[in-house]
Amino acid sequence: MVQTDPEDTHSMAQKTVLIVYAHQSPCSFNSALKDVAVEELEEQGYRVIVSDLYAMDFRANATREDIIGELKNPHLFQYGEETLHAWMEHRLSDDIVAEQRKVEEAELIIFQFPLYWFSVPAIMKGWMDRVLTQGFAFSLEKMYNYGIFKDKKAMLSFTTGATQTMFSPEGINGDINVALWPLQNGTLHFCGFQILAPQIFWSPAFCPDMVRTAMLDGWRARLKGLLKEKPLTFAPCELFDLSFQGGFLLRPDVKKELNSQPYGLTTGHHLGKPLPPDNQIKTQPDESRPKAE
Amino acid sequence: MVQTDPEDTHSMAQKTVLIVYAHQSPCSFNSALKDVAVEELEEQGYRVIVSDLYAMDFRANATREDIIGELKNPHLFQYGEETLHAWMEHRLSDDIVAEQRKVEEAELIIFQFPLYWFSVPAIMKGWMDRVLTQGFAFSLEKMYNYGIFKDKKAMLSFTTGATQTMFSPEGINGDINVALWPLQNGTLHFCGFQILAPQIFWSPAFCPDMVRTAMLDGWRARLKGLLKEKPLTFAPCELFDLSFQGGFLLRPDVKKELNSQPYGLTTGHHLGKPLPPDNQIKTQPDESRPKAE
Repeated sequence: MVQTDPEDTHSMAQKTVLIVYAHQSPCSFNSALKDVAVEELEEQGYRVIVSDLYAMDFRANATREDIIGELKNPHLFQYGEETLHAWMEHRLSDDIVAEQRKVEEAELIIFQFPLYWFSVPAIMKGWMDRVLTQGFAFSLEKMYNYGIFKDKKAMLSFTTGATQTMFSPEGINGDINVALWPLQNGTLHFCGFQILAPQIFWSPAFCPDMVRTAMLDGWRARLKGLLKEKPLTFAPCELFDLSFQGGFLLRPDVKKELNSQPYGLTTGHHLGKPLPPDNQIKTQPDESRPKAE
Repeated sequence: MVQTDPEDTHSMAQKTVLIVYAHQSPCSFNSALKDVAVEELEEQGYRVIVSDLYAMDFRANATREDIIGELKNPHLFQYGEETLHAWMEHRLSDDIVAEQRKVEEAELIIFQFPLYWFSVPAIMKGWMDRVLTQGFAFSLEKMYNYGIFKDKKAMLSFTTGATQTMFSPEGINGDINVALWPLQNGTLHFCGFQILAPQIFWSPAFCPDMVRTAMLDGWRARLKGLLKEKPLTFAPCELFDLSFQGGFLLRPDVKKELNSQPYGLTTGHHLGKPLPPDNQIKTQPDESRPKAE
């Protein structure tokens, strides 16, 4: 096997963006947004890979078919356990391995989708369930800012049916920051990804063409500096006692230090205080959380 | 067509529970939890229907196959629009119609699943995406407490990998109340369902048999009074100006009235205040929110 120069491999890896894309129609606004990203990033010299999930007829269901060969425990099929073993033994199904290879190569993953039920469409949830397997994407020791993909970035880019005010803390749907927590913290940042602020296109279906064109232009403009953006703020592992005895809870000294702060740490780590405003949609000022020693 | 007595139809409808169940193995703890619910509810005289999603090989992906016959707009496939029309014209695919019939018949739906990435497995997300279609499950006029299924109940019953402290506001994963918001408020309550407190089984895979047995017993005990439980608290539509001019925002008089309250209204409608503790996992005292006039 030819050994490539590590420096070369690194710089090659630095040049790839993966777009995981979920819309059924090539004539959709989501498709146009994906095309703008491909065009703009290629212009910047990036290699752009698109996983067009519907076109691929990507399987969403986590089943026994995801493991090649025999199961460790055919009597009691545990998806997490079986895929961990299969990953270690190179026995995951070809479609999963192909996506995992793309993830490894990418320095940034953009998820492009229409919001379905405050979340990603099932086909994209299936991508997350099946591709981000234990061992490959996380372990109990490697999660959040210690995570396997801590040197990579990820972001959500999505269209909504609802308007922006509907998704405010005083709007009928409640705060969009709360809605994004399971995807951004619970899934992507859990695997280590630094999360760039989501790109949200508010109800494009109800906007005149001119507004949609402006949305495309705004997206193109953001893409120019995207990879230099500061990521969103999450709670670093250093602040917690990461042991079963310690309950994976905030360290007492950190908790004490935080008492004087007006806001919680993040949307999910609110500590019974008001949520830090827009924690899941805007870059936060540096001083808003304590430094780990 | 024979017209059945409306009273009879009603009382028949009152007696059905639907369990939407997503685990691959009949030997799993999730399966045992499902079995306990079937047994206990049948003992109480309920008719129990189980949608065993993996056994059904339920399709998760929202595609053109969900519509029988021609599309309204073959050039630009918009899933929401097309399924609305198909529902009106009785042209949704048979598997969707079969599930919608079960939903209509049920007075309670229990979702039984292992938590995957702070949410439901993709196969269950697919059930939500494909079965809860516009027209059948919601409209812009009929949502939340005005919703189509306001006389029905729904609840999540799930197992976790993480421990309970990990999912506290000071735990490494953040507050479980935040994680449940998109499913409970954004999906089920959006369609009108009254939401019963979730039944959470914390990391059963890491518990000794005795603890798992106690979990099953606890679930059985709760099921005895389940349908008489008071549902969780959400923000009623009456508090909002439900118009595009009004932005679907909290009414100014309500906002003023809430100023003196120590907590926000719900997890998502936090109004910049601390979240009402355990809003998404425990029944709240009545006085915690203003009455609509």
